[in-house]
Amino acid sequence: MQITLARNSGFCFGVKRAIKLAEETAAKYGHAITIGPIIHNPQMVEQLNNVGIKVVDDVDSIKDGPVIIRSHGIPFEYLQTLNNKKIKIIDATCPYVAKAQEFAKLADKENYDILILGDPSHPEIVALKSYVKSNVLVWHENDELPLNNYNKVAIICQTTQNIKNLDTLTQSLLPNCKELRIFNTICNTTYMRQEASLELAKRSDIMIVIGGKNSANTLMLAKLCSDYTITKHIETVDEIEDMWFSEFLRSSISKGITTTEKKKENIGITAGASTPDVIIADIYNKIKVIVGEGDTQIELIEDIPSYKEEPNEY
Amino acid sequence: MQITLARNSGFCFGVKRAIKLAEETAAKYGHAITIGPIIHNPQMVEQLNNVGIKVVDDVDSIKDGPVIIRSHGIPFEYLQTLNNKKIKIIDATCPYVAKAQEFAKLADKENYDILILGDPSHPEIVALKSYVKSNVLVWHENDELPLNNYNKVAIICQTTQNIKNLDTLTQSLLPNCKELRIFNTICNTTYMRQEASLELAKRSDIMIVIGGKNSANTLMLAKLCSDYTITKHIETVDEIEDMWFSEFLRSSISKGITTTEKKKENIGITAGASTPDVIIADIYNKIKVIVGEGDTQIELIEDIPSYKEEPNEY
Repeated sequence: MQITLARNSGFCFGVKRAIKLAEETAAKYGHAITIGPIIHNPQMVEQLNNVGIKVVDDVDSIKDGPVIIRSHGIPFEYLQTLNNKKIKIIDATCPYVAKAQEFAKLADKENYDILILGDPSHPEIVALKSYVKSNVLVWHENDELPLNNYNKVAIICQTTQNIKNLDTLTQSLLPNCKELRIFNTICNTTYMRQEASLELAKRSDIMIVIGGKNSANTLMLAKLCSDYTITKHIETVDEIEDMWFSEFLRSSISKGITTTEKKKENIGITAGASTPDVIIADIYNKIKVIVGEGDTQIELIEDIPSYKEEPNEY
Repeated sequence: MQITLARNSGFCFGVKRAIKLAEETAAKYGHAITIGPIIHNPQMVEQLNNVGIKVVDDVDSIKDGPVIIRSHGIPFEYLQTLNNKKIKIIDATCPYVAKAQEFAKLADKENYDILILGDPSHPEIVALKSYVKSNVLVWHENDELPLNNYNKVAIICQTTQNIKNLDTLTQSLLPNCKELRIFNTICNTTYMRQEASLELAKRSDIMIVIGGKNSANTLMLAKLCSDYTITKHIETVDEIEDMWFSEFLRSSISKGITTTEKKKENIGITAGASTPDVIIADIYNKIKVIVGEGDTQIELIEDIPSYKEEPNEY
């Protein structure tokens, strides 16, 4: 019996930075507003709500600041509205997301046709699109692949995308374009987390994926893992069911058929970028109790995930 | 029995243009020099030699012009040497090859690491490399794939390359680079000729690939076709062997085994970009005689290959 936590699970640099900014703002002003949740973790958003960080949906309803820009960024028009109202802004846009916005502006200025790889309904993509003045196409997995002939086309990626989707889109475009400029804005920590989770899923009997049900990077983790093993996507410890960790083995004995229960041997855990460590710890401890602590061998995470440090360059 | 000529076989726009320039030069000056063969077809080079176009290997040996720049381009240093000697130059570089040289200069100026996809010993690539001042890596199929981490990397392709090799290189680079700028300088006519030849190879019992043994695009055609059917790469009609077009079928009759001869049903022909029409026609007619003209049904090429017209833009 082994419970293993995938490397690079949980809070990434961008989420840590956003929460730190929110907590500092709460301490200084006693209140603040975000347009949409600051990160995609309802439990963390609730916790911030308790110290005065309120979520609104409508930028026009905002009368007073400070306004914290969520980690996913906000559309350019919202920024203009806030600036026109002279409202104090604290920018918690993930620097990697901000970088993708810069690339979108650059590609637009240099007259590329622009393809965004991502979920058109996700706030990061809604914001990213707003920085492109010309026509822009958003391609999401399972959409029909674009077959246009392009002279100059640029791809910009949602930071939580999967490299395989980027490969698929690239391969489809290559024969029909003269220049293809790919801004690989898939966040390196997202990529490393996906790789570590996939590697763990391949050798696990069950994977527990922890994170917001509205979190793109957590949903992607769950999708990737489910290709290899039984996968449960949960937000909190309360969702855990004991029976997930046992399985009934059918054994035919003489004329009758009986069932025997067996514990799953290898349990894998991973968590999205917006999942607080405390939630991961709760779930880990609960599983330990269910499967019987005596049997449990904890696999330590030896590598300190490098992304948890502030990157020098982004 | 069917003999089919693949669409887009034979002379491409760049080769036609180079030969036209060479013939005009011969008519005007009575003599000229090329550094290396103007195109990769020994028969055509011999024909041009007969009207005064001589091939030399060493730029330093040239005392007098005019010098015709071969379709594959020449290294920048050679150009400088000729200019220093004030020798008249007639530029027969294929405009698509020249475009790749322009992209190489652009990517170099904009501080990209540069990867060239192609054969490092091919004159087109030797010339292309010379236009890059910074370090440049040439990747050829079957080489180990580069695993470096790149900040900004550009790919430029030999015009006769295969799109699958570009896919392979791209997929290998994508996870490890922030920006990948692909100049898809694979000539569209090369791509179309490869696609048409492959489609034909899949439904042929034998493919005859016609073109210089030193012609990169012809070698690539032969390699691609040989994945699907028996493939013979020839330069001239003299290389044809009658037995290629028949096969011995073993039939077991009562106790003995006899062999019966059967003609191949579907014969495919394709030709590289530097193969003159007259050579294709000779070979086609010879095969018709071998397989028995009465049986032959000629499949007409309905599409006038669009690349044979001068492109509006390159």
